Amino acid sequence: MSRLHKFAQAPIIVVVSAVVAFAQTSARDYRRAHEHQILTEFTRLLAIPNVASDRENIRRNAQFIFEMMQRRGLNPQLLEAKSKDTPPTVFGEWKAPGATHAIVLYAHYDGQPVDPKQWTASPPFQPTWRSAAFESGGKIVTLPDNGEINPEWRLYARAASDDKAGVMAILTAFEALRAQDIGPSLNLKFIFEGEEEAGSPRDQNVDVTVYGAKRPLHSGHYGNWAPNPAMLLARLLASMKDDTGRVTIAGWYDGVESLGEAERRAISEAPAYDDELRSQLGLARTEGNDRSLLEVINEPSLNINGMSSGDVGPLARNVIPTTATAVLDLRLVKGTDHQRQVQRLIDHIRKQGFYVIDQDPTDAERKQHALIAKVTARSGGYNAERTRMDWPISIAVIGAVQSTSKDPIVKLPTSGGSLPLAIITDHLRTTTMTVPIANYDNNQHAENENLRLQNLWDGIETWAAVMMIRPKF
Amino acid sequence: MSRLHKFAQAPIIVVVSAVVAFAQTSARDYRRAHEHQILTEFTRLLAIPNVASDRENIRRNAQFIFEMMQRRGLNPQLLEAKSKDTPPTVFGEWKAPGATHAIVLYAHYDGQPVDPKQWTASPPFQPTWRSAAFESGGKIVTLPDNGEINPEWRLYARAASDDKAGVMAILTAFEALRAQDIGPSLNLKFIFEGEEEAGSPRDQNVDVTVYGAKRPLHSGHYGNWAPNPAMLLARLLASMKDDTGRVTIAGWYDGVESLGEAERRAISEAPAYDDELRSQLGLARTEGNDRSLLEVINEPSLNINGMSSGDVGPLARNVIPTTATAVLDLRLVKGTDHQRQVQRLIDHIRKQGFYVIDQDPTDAERKQHALIAKVTARSGGYNAERTRMDWPISIAVIGAVQSTSKDPIVKLPTSGGSLPLAIITDHLRTTTMTVPIANYDNNQHAENENLRLQNLWDGIETWAAVMMIRPKF
Repeated sequence: MSRLHKFAQAPIIVVVSAVVAFAQTSARDYRRAHEHQILTEFTRLLAIPNVASDRENIRRNAQFIFEMMQRRGLNPQLLEAKSKDTPPTVFGEWKAPGATHAIVLYAHYDGQPVDPKQWTASPPFQPTWRSAAFESGGKIVTLPDNGEINPEWRLYARAASDDKAGVMAILTAFEALRAQDIGPSLNLKFIFEGEEEAGSPRDQNVDVTVYGAKRPLHSGHYGNWAPNPAMLLARLLASMKDDTGRVTIAGWYDGVESLGEAERRAISEAPAYDDELRSQLGLARTEGNDRSLLEVINEPSLNINGMSSGDVGPLARNVIPTTATAVLDLRLVKGTDHQRQVQRLIDHIRKQGFYVIDQDPTDAERKQHALIAKVTARSGGYNAERTRMDWPISIAVIGAVQSTSKDPIVKLPTSGGSLPLAIITDHLRTTTMTVPIANYDNNQHAENENLRLQNLWDGIETWAAVMMIRPKF
Repeated sequence: MSRLHKFAQAPIIVVVSAVVAFAQTSARDYRRAHEHQILTEFTRLLAIPNVASDRENIRRNAQFIFEMMQRRGLNPQLLEAKSKDTPPTVFGEWKAPGATHAIVLYAHYDGQPVDPKQWTASPPFQPTWRSAAFESGGKIVTLPDNGEINPEWRLYARAASDDKAGVMAILTAFEALRAQDIGPSLNLKFIFEGEEEAGSPRDQNVDVTVYGAKRPLHSGHYGNWAPNPAMLLARLLASMKDDTGRVTIAGWYDGVESLGEAERRAISEAPAYDDELRSQLGLARTEGNDRSLLEVINEPSLNINGMSSGDVGPLARNVIPTTATAVLDLRLVKGTDHQRQVQRLIDHIRKQGFYVIDQDPTDAERKQHALIAKVTARSGGYNAERTRMDWPISIAVIGAVQSTSKDPIVKLPTSGGSLPLAIITDHLRTTTMTVPIANYDNNQHAENENLRLQNLWDGIETWAAVMMIRPKF
């Protein structure tokens, strides 16, 4: 997803005018005339591996985007952190004559880790077109040399959606406006960063490891006697939620800031798509006794990303494993504090009888404690943000996005992506809004990530419209 | 471990005589004079990969053992099953003049699957000597060209203990007796087979998979809404045991045959080594409220071999996984039936609300059932056996083994290894006894399997003594 934020929360009046609609039409015309050129640039970008820990390639991504911005006259700079291990941020700007305010346009160029074995559709960094979603039987197709491209086609690659689509849509929208000499009405600042998915700070992930014997034991000789860490972990995890999916950790939902009037209305106005989604995902029932997704996403969550002990499949052996590990992610909402939330988790683990440490136990610790859990938070984490929907800048952006669609747009008070919103809000003293453009079934964060082409086309128009908002201060 | 069994359960009277002690001394003398030759042959055997599914190499093992037996004058045959995929059984025999009964000596030459990545000491099929256990800081050492070898050294390789040590000890014991022209008192039959660890039938393993959404979902967008299969599996597994490790599946302990007087005495006479074992394994407490290992091993067990959902470690991503899988092993004891036990497990899973199937769910099944578990038993399984300790043949073998040690030997009514004992008992109408020779900390079934050299030396003497029992019928 791509996001934008507006400097300063000063009340502004926005006129969603004919100019916005004009921007959208212009962007469409330009895109139609340049589809092949746009997609050539996009697939070259997607072919550069972008896992944040791959230092060499992540810099190649930054360099490629730097050159994209040079071609568009954006005077880019590569902003380096103190540590050379930190991916550079690519910064650029465009000054509107006489403008005194700016919109900052943000997207990230790094992607989630990949396990190539799991990419059954095509390799993650070999951008591949399919006639439809792989899961629906879409076949591999070749881009025609010229002529219009079927907008239902899917482009498969890591970050095709999350979030190189954002980089591409933003820069193409700007290019389209400038090519037709249409001037954005505010100053524009572009920030594309490379450690959203894996950098620090990031999502609040917590690794939990519990321990059995120091060496793997033959299950026939030691079963009924040696504690099995997989079972200890299962019991621990099971203690964290009830059978409706509600988190049972004490205080988990404390402090959550209630939604305002505008936010509650936005949720009630959104189309009810839970049944359709359940059907597509093959789920007979969802958590929270089938409460709507738009509602439950406004509550803090606790999710298991992964769980592992010993081996399954052909490598499974008749052993009692030595350890069992789960990776949890803690999603926050406005009003919850990340440190307090991690502390509540640790307190809960202690309450289940575990001695909690942050490294592997020593022999002395093993002697003293029957239940030991290593609990480590992957990074400092940060808190959740929510921008009020009834502020003028919110109304302006909503209006611009709405102008690109005949159907009513869906407005969500809270979205699940964990971005450095809190940092932006705190450091730049401004507020943020998220404008997602990818298809809902894009497999982001998973194997076989993809983008539906029409979503990129729509995204370009949406961003062009947003760049043309004309607030009156 | 290597095992033996005696044809026919007819009462026999055994004289544990000076002959047995003589056999032991002779075996020791022979071994001392041939240590290098024995270990050269053994390391060549260990260097042949022996995972049962590796059809080509498993046959190389059989051929190697065939030649070992040829060199010892045992007239070996490779017994082939109907299917060429079944590893051959190597059979040989030696006839004692005038003997009317036979002892069958059994060991298996296949080993448990290996994941080379996990073999941190040395690769599984590159036999490597260490000065002590790897976990205790043992360093890699080279076998001296001649002279005595430190018997505390360890030999690292898959099957170094389980069960090529059995093959080696049995054949070397026979070789030692024959080299000194000492005639075993009974006919001997040798059976070395190649599908104990992975063939069919084998341990009763059951794979359980539970399901979430059909595709992995971004945990930020779908947390609190989409069921997480890792959590569903954790809850299901947690329902199977109480916090002392007792299985809570209805009927799990029904039908277990009680121990007899001799067996109860054997357990009470065995040295109490639970505290020492707990200390070495780094366990402050064991299951069953610290009941003794020798006692609890006589009860049926339920163990988790492995558990997996999504990814942990560097590949972990902020997703809700699509499935979660556990591999369970069900250890049986005398009186429990393997099919009934699997059925009890399935009934329990149903009682937790799961719809149980034996393949991945269809869309129609997903629509109808919120909780779905795929449950598959890995093979037909077989029941447990227990030979009474007060039978004459038992007394004879116990006496022979005891004669090789100044310390009282430990006699266990039940051992954890799942061997084809039931098949032997049923088809040959005989009874079985197990004579383990490996060190207790051998990592069998796990990575870094090893054998302490002195255990091989003792094993040779033990088997020589067993071959010399002189029952009177």
